[in-house]
Amino acid sequence: MRQPVDLAKSYRLLNHGPTVLVTSAHAGASNVMAAAWSMPLDFDPPKVTVVIDRTTYTRALVEASGEFALNIPSRKLAQATVDVGSRSGREGDKFAQYGLATFQGSQIAAPLIEDCVGWLECRVIPERHNQDRYDLFIGEVVAAWADPAIFRDGRWVPDADVGSIHYIAGGAFFETGKGFHVETD
Amino acid sequence: MRQPVDLAKSYRLLNHGPTVLVTSAHAGASNVMAAAWSMPLDFDPPKVTVVIDRTTYTRALVEASGEFALNIPSRKLAQATVDVGSRSGREGDKFAQYGLATFQGSQIAAPLIEDCVGWLECRVIPERHNQDRYDLFIGEVVAAWADPAIFRDGRWVPDADVGSIHYIAGGAFFETGKGFHVETD
Repeated sequence: MRQPVDLAKSYRLLNHGPTVLVTSAHAGASNVMAAAWSMPLDFDPPKVTVVIDRTTYTRALVEASGEFALNIPSRKLAQATVDVGSRSGREGDKFAQYGLATFQGSQIAAPLIEDCVGWLECRVIPERHNQDRYDLFIGEVVAAWADPAIFRDGRWVPDADVGSIHYIAGGAFFETGKGFHVETD
Repeated sequence: MRQPVDLAKSYRLLNHGPTVLVTSAHAGASNVMAAAWSMPLDFDPPKVTVVIDRTTYTRALVEASGEFALNIPSRKLAQATVDVGSRSGREGDKFAQYGLATFQGSQIAAPLIEDCVGWLECRVIPERHNQDRYDLFIGEVVAAWADPAIFRDGRWVPDADVGSIHYIAGGAFFETGKGFHVETD
């Protein structure tokens, strides 16, 4: 299930630091990689950063297409997240290899991955120096989606099993834990 | 308690996406702000990114000193994290106002905050375009520390109550949840 997310609230899908799957497509080819290194960069228009190593196939597809999607996997996809992070799409179709079903987004060609809890469709804001020197990409979020059982009306559903995942290293993750509130002014 | 963290493993303090407290100091003044928008950028030498809005007092101190620290607060500091994020250091000393004890780092002048679980001392890698256009700062991690009850030998301690926190919005956080592993090649 998925519903559109108001772009002004889309940063909240990434604000708590989940690990993401980066999808990309160009000229009939598509790919998926894992990334722990992404974050929101701005609210309006919403922007994100993500590190895409220069050796990856994803890098070639993102630079050629000027687009990428950040898919926020559920724990159900934790094994696939590590698997797609340890093989190159140059060696074969990782969607087929790891049984990742996809659907079409609304603004970009990169496929979006089923069983995720949220999705951010992004267009690259070209910043050649950052890309070349730091493998750092900036994207403007042009569409966002979420599973309404988990995130709706611009908020994570209280007490939902959020199920996003936070990669450490060596196959180890933290689950997203319980929500709590503190006082605000 | 704190012990040094091998710089090569310091990215693991941030890899799972915790919210951080950014500390800074210049010419006898110091400050602290909250930031959900930070991430690792590189392994060796370790680098991080963090968004520091141009309207903040922290921004002035970081640009003047070329240094900042990322402090990873425990849940004990969740209220203080929201509090320091909602007031400017131009209005008064937030360390005193919110009872934040500090200690001296080894490489930079910015104070480090007690009761955090990890600390990254950083020197700004000047990137004027990123700073001016995106409020985006890149820092090289020049020293790192962690509470050995929670992170030691380059790893989060299994089944420790990690206690880092992940900000959403409006005073709401997720706790860091349980650790789990999947298979690696």
